Amino acid sequence: MQIMINEIKNWIKEAAELIKKEIAKNDMTVDTKNGRRDLVTNVDKQVQDFLIEQINAFDPDAKILGEENGKDHLTDFSGRVFIIDPIDGTLNFVLEQENFCIMIAVYEEGQGKLGFIYNVMEDMLLWGGKEVGVFINEERLNTPPDLALKDGLVGMNSSMYRKNSYNAQVMAERSMGVRMSGCAGLEMIALIRGKHNAYVSSLAPWDYAAGSVMLEALGIKFSNINGKMLKFDGREHYIAATPTAYEEMMRLAEQAKS
Amino acid sequence: MQIMINEIKNWIKEAAELIKKEIAKNDMTVDTKNGRRDLVTNVDKQVQDFLIEQINAFDPDAKILGEENGKDHLTDFSGRVFIIDPIDGTLNFVLEQENFCIMIAVYEEGQGKLGFIYNVMEDMLLWGGKEVGVFINEERLNTPPDLALKDGLVGMNSSMYRKNSYNAQVMAERSMGVRMSGCAGLEMIALIRGKHNAYVSSLAPWDYAAGSVMLEALGIKFSNINGKMLKFDGREHYIAATPTAYEEMMRLAEQAKS
Repeated sequence: MQIMINEIKNWIKEAAELIKKEIAKNDMTVDTKNGRRDLVTNVDKQVQDFLIEQINAFDPDAKILGEENGKDHLTDFSGRVFIIDPIDGTLNFVLEQENFCIMIAVYEEGQGKLGFIYNVMEDMLLWGGKEVGVFINEERLNTPPDLALKDGLVGMNSSMYRKNSYNAQVMAERSMGVRMSGCAGLEMIALIRGKHNAYVSSLAPWDYAAGSVMLEALGIKFSNINGKMLKFDGREHYIAATPTAYEEMMRLAEQAKS
Repeated sequence: MQIMINEIKNWIKEAAELIKKEIAKNDMTVDTKNGRRDLVTNVDKQVQDFLIEQINAFDPDAKILGEENGKDHLTDFSGRVFIIDPIDGTLNFVLEQENFCIMIAVYEEGQGKLGFIYNVMEDMLLWGGKEVGVFINEERLNTPPDLALKDGLVGMNSSMYRKNSYNAQVMAERSMGVRMSGCAGLEMIALIRGKHNAYVSSLAPWDYAAGSVMLEALGIKFSNINGKMLKFDGREHYIAATPTAYEEMMRLAEQAKS
């Protein structure tokens, strides 16, 4: 596993260099996908192609699920699967040139083995899994304190908050405050580091795959908003939180349905 | 003015060291002010006392308006006034130990002369004014592009967004997205650097004084939400945006009242 960890770290650092070069060149092509806010750039595609090349060279038998280039659907999760998001937070990437992440997850026979989330512009890599532990760069992270909902900050999707989906406004009101970053990777990093105690959003598999591996390793709970296991197929309402906050938030989500 | 700039930079760096030492000691005293989310720590008070000491030594005649220690009200803005927020984003400071700022503004005869916003944990200082220009650390910033509302990100206060105050939800929907950081200083920095194109919140004078000086120097518009000049007395609904976005947002705010 150490060989694979080192390999993936190298891919991420190389992908980050590619991204920084493209930012410096400043001639990105920006297209929309499903709606005017759903952006993709030539850089997203280039980085995904680069990562797929590396994965194929490293393990030709591995399957790949990724946000771009028609790789966004997978039915067979047997064997080893890499789930990748070349640029998570593309809108931030285009408008801010910061607050975006590269994310890679490794699943084996449907089980999360390794997760990597790299905040490119801050050079902050969160990585690890159940077997090796979770690290920020090379420093090991402990399980964050099990804060109640009322004692921490909640990262949240703006549309769920606006519509009070699943009592999202009530969750936010009971917490110390709501935060919106526009980047699932950043929200995952905040949760893994114990800076936030919960995250509620509508996510695709490549948005939650890497983070969930690390959350599981640290005993932070996650599921879809109905308390079911994630399907790794299409978008779902996602919730992750410290165990105590998770229980309270799931009760609130349940009440919203009745 | 250069002497004053250098002085204030030194105060800020020294205050930042004090804050980092307190974070390392990890034995903060946290109290609430108006409500359970309105926090103040012994560090806020210590830093404000330190800044007041420096101001008094530098200019004994200057008046001071500041968030803590009963300095939060001032009626006479003649002469030189320092407006200070020792820790802007205290909730983030307590829960995240990052995403907070030190802010200092200098006003003379009611006119904004200098503003300083320091993102302590990222070592990022925004400073300047109409006469000297605006800088990020020692690099001069240009006026950001005059993006329309639809082309940029809007920083927003969660309560105004939830309640759709002044059509805040409509503003957010027409933009590329809404962001919430829980720190006025960070929102000002994003606006000054052209990463966001608007900011709408409910702010006290020490929240908007430093940022507004730099916004004015860069031609970014700001006012209270009714289009009136800020009162520098108590909390007001604040709006700041690129000129084009400002016009559209003010029309939406006006429509909400009729």
